[in-house]
Amino acid sequence: MPELRHDPIQKRWVIIATERARRPSDFRIERDTGGDGKCPFCYGNEGMTPPEIRVFRDGSAANAPGWKVRVVPNKFPALRIEGDLDRAAAGQYDRMNGIGAHEVIIETPHHDKDLPDLSLDEIALVLSMYRDRIMDLRNDPRFRYVLVFRNRGSAAGASLAHPHSQLIATPVTPRTVAIELESAREHYTAKERCIFCDIIAQELATHSRVVAADADFVSWCPYASRFPFEVTLAPRRHEHDFGVLDDQALARLARHLREVLLRIKRSLDDPPYNYMLHTAPAYHLKPRRPGYWSTIELDWHWHLEILPRLTKMAGFEWGTGFYINPTPPEDAARFLREVTV
Amino acid sequence: MPELRHDPIQKRWVIIATERARRPSDFRIERDTGGDGKCPFCYGNEGMTPPEIRVFRDGSAANAPGWKVRVVPNKFPALRIEGDLDRAAAGQYDRMNGIGAHEVIIETPHHDKDLPDLSLDEIALVLSMYRDRIMDLRNDPRFRYVLVFRNRGSAAGASLAHPHSQLIATPVTPRTVAIELESAREHYTAKERCIFCDIIAQELATHSRVVAADADFVSWCPYASRFPFEVTLAPRRHEHDFGVLDDQALARLARHLREVLLRIKRSLDDPPYNYMLHTAPAYHLKPRRPGYWSTIELDWHWHLEILPRLTKMAGFEWGTGFYINPTPPEDAARFLREVTV
Repeated sequence: MPELRHDPIQKRWVIIATERARRPSDFRIERDTGGDGKCPFCYGNEGMTPPEIRVFRDGSAANAPGWKVRVVPNKFPALRIEGDLDRAAAGQYDRMNGIGAHEVIIETPHHDKDLPDLSLDEIALVLSMYRDRIMDLRNDPRFRYVLVFRNRGSAAGASLAHPHSQLIATPVTPRTVAIELESAREHYTAKERCIFCDIIAQELATHSRVVAADADFVSWCPYASRFPFEVTLAPRRHEHDFGVLDDQALARLARHLREVLLRIKRSLDDPPYNYMLHTAPAYHLKPRRPGYWSTIELDWHWHLEILPRLTKMAGFEWGTGFYINPTPPEDAARFLREVTV
Repeated sequence: MPELRHDPIQKRWVIIATERARRPSDFRIERDTGGDGKCPFCYGNEGMTPPEIRVFRDGSAANAPGWKVRVVPNKFPALRIEGDLDRAAAGQYDRMNGIGAHEVIIETPHHDKDLPDLSLDEIALVLSMYRDRIMDLRNDPRFRYVLVFRNRGSAAGASLAHPHSQLIATPVTPRTVAIELESAREHYTAKERCIFCDIIAQELATHSRVVAADADFVSWCPYASRFPFEVTLAPRRHEHDFGVLDDQALARLARHLREVLLRIKRSLDDPPYNYMLHTAPAYHLKPRRPGYWSTIELDWHWHLEILPRLTKMAGFEWGTGFYINPTPPEDAARFLREVTV
């Protein structure tokens, strides 16, 4: 059973994946090899993954070719779906069982196409699978947050080349999300305005950091970008929850996301990247405690963070939490705007 | 002039290094090449670096061969030493000039020896250079924190193979340090005990995570290690400030640090790694505000964090601030203890 452990000084949870305990020699192998043989995400190899959790397909049999988007449990899950949390002290430390969900969203049967190479309909199907899985897992009272993320390229942590996203449901609110939630709530408490709406308004007004904008969505390089060519995508109008998007909104989002990913791909010669979807946490869907009034619908604004992985984390970043970004976001946005897509 | 920019949602500062603005094509080059010609840190190439700030040498001329440890400004500094902070608003954002120090500590003239391959006397000289530079830079009222760190191996962000450490003095307390300071103060306020002393006592008592211990120092794999084979080193007895260590203490630290680094090197086949020294911040040396009583001497405990870089950061880590560690720290500590040094 994997274990969640709490660091009392950094106030941070860590997943100790006790079931695949690694010996020093395992890391030597990891550094020396890279390739793999048969792709478990291609048509005909469905038996190489655990059985599908949810799938979009036109009539073909389960766990057989013919699917369009396919969701399976991660074969090497960081967290386990079965069991109770068993929160406990360990001396002065804190632990709980590593309960959660860890799923793989196989985006297309096409091994060699990246997400932005798919048709708009195909991309919209992937996005609607994100929505469906988020909404389903939120019903599990053990989970506080559902994160959808995508690793593209081995430098970004992808162990398989076939296009896929992942999803992790966690039994605690992750620290990065908690800091964002807290900032948004503080801002709303002081001003009765959404901090993301304020930022979007300023970005659209100054325009120097905008990468793409249409009637529904805007993407920009954040003022304090950690990484070169970092991009944040958000709905222009206030919307706290990715889960409420209807199919028409997802079709419009597919068009916007494809444009942004193509701009990054063409500007930077198909770079490795991560993206992470920060939607509302699960807890607001549960009955509120008496006397506790949540403003999450008013203070939170869902967004997607896209991080091209062009620089390396080193001792300075680990020791400080600061980042050194060699490309001003205004320059990055100009390059991304000017490339032809 | 580099610029410090504040992210209002993540409450994090970022250094935008405006002077070496990078175009997309620069990153393509970075991914394709790696090597370099003449090493600027070797004897005879002293002219390739800016003039030395401080040096240990026996009588030879400045900026010429014959030195033992040599400190020079970073040729491509993330922060500039000259100027005023000029704190200002930028719309709803916050910025200040990128003022600070960024120095390189060239540890030895031997290009091919890593730090633990040096003699104990040589390692102690490097440590005393850390102490001297920290104490000197703390006198500059513009700086809040001085971080010494070391990147070893290109996967850990080292751009040069010649053994060296770096030092950055920042005009704001870095977020990672601020969280640790806050945790330490909260613990002390509640219990009148140092949180690090409590942790060290528990680690020595359970012993399963201890890597090395002698009369003065202890190194252990933290209970909630983020990374496989992560190690924290600290003095056994309460000591808030690395800057107060005398030469005898530094000689003992050299022996302990060499042992720990050799255990990591031999267990993991000379892995890339970072280490970061978290000593007391600079502000406690300044006159205290009326009515403000600092407990930093009582609540803080200096320590060195050593991070072998065996796994990659991916979307999950970026999106949550959580980490997935495939090697339980108890297993890592056992491997590190059992290797012969």
